[in-house]
Amino acid sequence: MALAGARAVEAAADELKRLLGDRVSDAPAVREHHSRGESYHAPAPPDIVCFPSSTGEVAEIARISQRFRLALVPFGAGTSLEGHVNAIHGGISVDLREMNKVLRVSAEDLDATVEAGVTRLQLARALRDTGLMFSVDPGADATIGGMAATRASGTTAVRYGTMRDNVLALTVVLADGAVIRTGTRARKSAAGYDLTRLFVGSEGTLGILTEVTVRLHPVPDAVSAAVCAFDSIQGAVETVIATIQLGIPVARIELLDENQLDAVNRYSRTHYPVAPTLFFEFHSDSDAHLKELADTVQALASERGGRGFEWATHLEDRERLWQARHTAYYAALALRPGAQGWTTDVCVPISRLAECIVETRKDNEGAPFPICLVAHAGDGNFHLIYVLDPRQPDEIEHARRLNERMVVRALAMGGTSTGEHGVGLGKMKYLEAEHGPALDTMRLLKRALDPDNRMNPGKMVLP
Amino acid sequence: MALAGARAVEAAADELKRLLGDRVSDAPAVREHHSRGESYHAPAPPDIVCFPSSTGEVAEIARISQRFRLALVPFGAGTSLEGHVNAIHGGISVDLREMNKVLRVSAEDLDATVEAGVTRLQLARALRDTGLMFSVDPGADATIGGMAATRASGTTAVRYGTMRDNVLALTVVLADGAVIRTGTRARKSAAGYDLTRLFVGSEGTLGILTEVTVRLHPVPDAVSAAVCAFDSIQGAVETVIATIQLGIPVARIELLDENQLDAVNRYSRTHYPVAPTLFFEFHSDSDAHLKELADTVQALASERGGRGFEWATHLEDRERLWQARHTAYYAALALRPGAQGWTTDVCVPISRLAECIVETRKDNEGAPFPICLVAHAGDGNFHLIYVLDPRQPDEIEHARRLNERMVVRALAMGGTSTGEHGVGLGKMKYLEAEHGPALDTMRLLKRALDPDNRMNPGKMVLP
Repeated sequence: MALAGARAVEAAADELKRLLGDRVSDAPAVREHHSRGESYHAPAPPDIVCFPSSTGEVAEIARISQRFRLALVPFGAGTSLEGHVNAIHGGISVDLREMNKVLRVSAEDLDATVEAGVTRLQLARALRDTGLMFSVDPGADATIGGMAATRASGTTAVRYGTMRDNVLALTVVLADGAVIRTGTRARKSAAGYDLTRLFVGSEGTLGILTEVTVRLHPVPDAVSAAVCAFDSIQGAVETVIATIQLGIPVARIELLDENQLDAVNRYSRTHYPVAPTLFFEFHSDSDAHLKELADTVQALASERGGRGFEWATHLEDRERLWQARHTAYYAALALRPGAQGWTTDVCVPISRLAECIVETRKDNEGAPFPICLVAHAGDGNFHLIYVLDPRQPDEIEHARRLNERMVVRALAMGGTSTGEHGVGLGKMKYLEAEHGPALDTMRLLKRALDPDNRMNPGKMVLP
Repeated sequence: MALAGARAVEAAADELKRLLGDRVSDAPAVREHHSRGESYHAPAPPDIVCFPSSTGEVAEIARISQRFRLALVPFGAGTSLEGHVNAIHGGISVDLREMNKVLRVSAEDLDATVEAGVTRLQLARALRDTGLMFSVDPGADATIGGMAATRASGTTAVRYGTMRDNVLALTVVLADGAVIRTGTRARKSAAGYDLTRLFVGSEGTLGILTEVTVRLHPVPDAVSAAVCAFDSIQGAVETVIATIQLGIPVARIELLDENQLDAVNRYSRTHYPVAPTLFFEFHSDSDAHLKELADTVQALASERGGRGFEWATHLEDRERLWQARHTAYYAALALRPGAQGWTTDVCVPISRLAECIVETRKDNEGAPFPICLVAHAGDGNFHLIYVLDPRQPDEIEHARRLNERMVVRALAMGGTSTGEHGVGLGKMKYLEAEHGPALDTMRLLKRALDPDNRMNPGKMVLP
């Protein structure tokens, strides 16, 4: 794409101001705020930031971007981890946080429609007292639009699925400003190409999501949680495999390695044994069944080196436990004041998870910075957090090599270069190895839907 | 597309014979067999039928079809219901039944890879003694490739999902003969566009599926089934809504109307009360929990006009019950010897299901042929079977009008023109009303992946 010059930016800014008034900004602080997510990638500010409040305004912004050949980069909560929101070709950052209305909740149909800028916790608050929950839980208080755009998942995906499974329908603004609605509120459909799934995970490179219809789930009647330390990572992972293979409907089954446990203990003032540890949550419709599930898993664990369960049945105890788990990232950063986190993830068939983790940890030995591991073990998905000093190029380079070795290993094991963080800038270079000729098919789709390469250009696939 | 003439067909047949030997045929009986599925649509024979035995051969067939500008129409078990396999522009029918190997089963990862021509029951046989099952169950013994291509579902979708949810990865031959692999064996991925979901449900219009990696599920430890007659359709549907809303993990919840019950009784020599009836199946990991589930649902039913459960806990009793349900289509046809079935389906948000069924049945009153109703009620999906005399144009026209009224009603209720049968020829005319401008996006995808419109042309979307 021939990038538009300063004059085009100025002219576009004038038109945008006519459209949006003071909901347009080119102030340095605002542009700076929209230059990056929560990742290590170099910040890149947009030329202009817009704060539209309706799908119609987003469509008009797209038409203006088309006229002046400016890039369009959607922006939500700014919590992305692979540089998705960095405006590497400048252009217009479309901040969707003003589109923050919960439009509709149906208790009978277990679904809701929200504007893209509604966050996960905002939706949770709107559902309080309905007996329903939105299950996808990536940790950060991301926007639902951003979660759909990056195909987010999190701790409960093992039971309730990822955004792929929990989005029913979308409103999307295309490159030329056309507005389409994909999917319906029917639970299933065989009526045409699955555009909903095409846009889920497309990271703003095919269109901008402005409304999302999501599935909801009944809040379970009975919930319990537990922590169990293991003698070895293998024992922990084998417990996970056995649990999944028996079809035990565990709601969460998270693995933390001893480095991460140590960081959690320091940060959250907890006293878990410093060892590979599984965090469990069980959901059921009955207390008796809940106890059966938990007993079964406890037996599986103790046969595999589990050192006994510490239970958390009361809500406050469970919240404390999951709070410890959810602050894992910040706990890791706190190991080294002034450090920055480079967090990365891969996902492999669960039969290869123990091997992949063990070999990766061997690579990590001797690294000049702390490395913590957290896994959504039931999905075969694990994360590393490299706790770096960003002023040390050697550290960045060391992390780059470790990350590459891990991704190459995951691909060789039949896995994927990212289970849930997305491609953005960070994983682009691995897509050829992962997809082979199918990457050409992705390029065809990109060119068909974004012929002048304005939609989050330079990310995911190059046309 | 300018259709190729007789000379091109002859030249292509020569090349195909060099490639495949006697696995090519232009014999009238073979072409006739490949002219239609199990639907009312006018048969249309291909010019040539091929029986490839590998992905490489399918790729070579695609290249030959490209050189001679001949249509490519994939063919599996021939059980499709909307004319998907009818070769309306002639060309090459690619019969995948020679590609019938189960390539790999992993008990640890709960997945399997099969060639596209493997049928559902063949896979079930291969899984016997593994403790695993493939859950998607559309009734007919369709091929896994055909089920993926039409996004099939069936009675267990309410618990285990449709083909959308149960396909992990695909091997696809594209229009130009390129072979791509979509997805990986990882349970989840955020690495690029979801090509797997794009091809699932694309009905051969974007490429030919040659291998499918599917998810498997553990065979449940405890299973029971039951039948319950109701005073009214409303009471039955309200029981379904309450069951789903409470999050009760029912494995099957099927509704048959009194016409269908009567047909089943006659055909299967059963003695169910002739009334709106729910067929249930419950799966659990424990007998105690199973009983709790069943008791809860029984209470919900009796509060809503259910006349008491008839239980089938032993395997043979359950098989008899589901046999009765699965032969519903043939039972309907047997109401009128010599008749042909026109079967159609829609899917609506479950809150609208009772209303949609009641109004549709009002339309159906006074029709000059029997009409039976079967619903995958937990999904909001129902089917009608019009039992027609195909020699009576008045009957065809009457069915056409009824079908149209039902589809228009389902769309007005936020539903879809087909929950699981697919678009094929039969539902094309409703896609504009269902998708609006998103249909243009589907056309863009079609043109991008099939620029000379050879892949099952004239179906689903016109380029």
